[in-house]
Amino acid sequence: MDQLAVDNGFQNVQLLSAVNDDHGGVIVEMKENMDPDVFLTALRASMSQWKLQGKRGVWIKLPIGLVNLVETAVKEGFWYHHAEPHYLMLVYWIPETGHTIPANVTHRVTIGAVVLNDKREVLVVQEKSGKFQGTGVWKIPTGVADEGEDIFTAAKREVKEETGIDTEFVEVLGFRQCHKSFFEKSDLLFLCMLRPLSFDIQKQDLEIEAAQWMPFDEYAAQPFAQKHSLYKYIIDLSLAKVDGDYGGFSLLPITSFFNDQISYLYFNQRDLKG
Amino acid sequence: MDQLAVDNGFQNVQLLSAVNDDHGGVIVEMKENMDPDVFLTALRASMSQWKLQGKRGVWIKLPIGLVNLVETAVKEGFWYHHAEPHYLMLVYWIPETGHTIPANVTHRVTIGAVVLNDKREVLVVQEKSGKFQGTGVWKIPTGVADEGEDIFTAAKREVKEETGIDTEFVEVLGFRQCHKSFFEKSDLLFLCMLRPLSFDIQKQDLEIEAAQWMPFDEYAAQPFAQKHSLYKYIIDLSLAKVDGDYGGFSLLPITSFFNDQISYLYFNQRDLKG
Repeated sequence: MDQLAVDNGFQNVQLLSAVNDDHGGVIVEMKENMDPDVFLTALRASMSQWKLQGKRGVWIKLPIGLVNLVETAVKEGFWYHHAEPHYLMLVYWIPETGHTIPANVTHRVTIGAVVLNDKREVLVVQEKSGKFQGTGVWKIPTGVADEGEDIFTAAKREVKEETGIDTEFVEVLGFRQCHKSFFEKSDLLFLCMLRPLSFDIQKQDLEIEAAQWMPFDEYAAQPFAQKHSLYKYIIDLSLAKVDGDYGGFSLLPITSFFNDQISYLYFNQRDLKG
Repeated sequence: MDQLAVDNGFQNVQLLSAVNDDHGGVIVEMKENMDPDVFLTALRASMSQWKLQGKRGVWIKLPIGLVNLVETAVKEGFWYHHAEPHYLMLVYWIPETGHTIPANVTHRVTIGAVVLNDKREVLVVQEKSGKFQGTGVWKIPTGVADEGEDIFTAAKREVKEETGIDTEFVEVLGFRQCHKSFFEKSDLLFLCMLRPLSFDIQKQDLEIEAAQWMPFDEYAAQPFAQKHSLYKYIIDLSLAKVDGDYGGFSLLPITSFFNDQISYLYFNQRDLKG
């Protein structure tokens, strides 16, 4: 809490420290332990002041160590916005108009990695768990991007972890969006073409049953691949890239105008230059 | 709670109702109001039984109305997994080995909509809040996809909501991934080309200050657009599509092999057809 004592009916009550956000609201990041009654008094005084100031959304971030304050905030009308293992984010909307609080994140990013060598062999694995367990189906390496991880980095990391192969990213051949794949959440699968930089397979034991370089035609001829639409398109797109002149989305770093941070743009660079 | 009374040191204690998940764990969906002490007793008895049964992850979904039970669960060692406005999901890992609880979702999906009419005018707006507020910059309609909403649907909806214009989806021209854009979360912005099906603008008042059809050259000539990398690429990609032969990713519905659900694949269909 900051040291302000205010004179709006809550004299000598300390207020919660808050910073302004970009949308006319405030963000409170609670850090110190506090008695729920003290928190309630400070919250009510602060809300009163924010109302007078015409603030809109109010965010309260509560570390899991301050779980004793969650009930108080909810009883004052806050609702859950999102949570991570170490914190819960609560939110409240002051104006009488409908709220414009942004929704929570909705998607997991997963990658599928097509790695082809000069002998027209594709890097494939069999997994120890999941939908393909025990089916004998050979599949390309797949995995989930970590928080804050770029798509191209996730693709290279998953290939390295599962097979020991070093690669460089070539392009995104396509992507698939599907819903309710993970509780109520959605999944964006980016199909990435990678070029191998090493060839000796060192399979990871925890998740991978087997890994090999497999002749592409043999991979494509698996009975399963004929029945499964996504598999079929993985094969078609890979062949269009290798044998044809397929233009996928390659990578360009750009700098944010607002904060100088690097982010990555993926687009058809061949056609833009063309 | 179900009606089971057990005989493992918690005689006559009712257990929490749970269903098995696909990974050797259990999911408890709490629905009825409960005193925290009653919950604590039932939770401890249930955990004891799940341990004996060799269960792994334990999920507890608490509706926001049962916020009074959150502290109890956390004090028993549960941590936050994710939250939505109406519930909090808590999780616990029983085995002594490192947990394999899947990470939370990480990305918000946003769209930017390039809508060009036959007079080479682009549909642009000025927003009432956000980074561009008061700058006089004209920008393409943008917005966040709802939970469970497809990229192409979100693009059409945002254009309709902000400007009243009906459109059909043409293709994704490119996308940008950036991190820490929204608390610790990441953002995938899909730049979508849309074809207008109506032309009379009815702007939305809540978020939009102004909307118009603007000559593309005028849009591109805004001083801001010259300094901002993403803006520059929006312009270049739009022109490559309109004037050149740019191959973006268009849309194909596919059926899941596993559950017959429809999902959408985005890829360069022009190049695949050859």
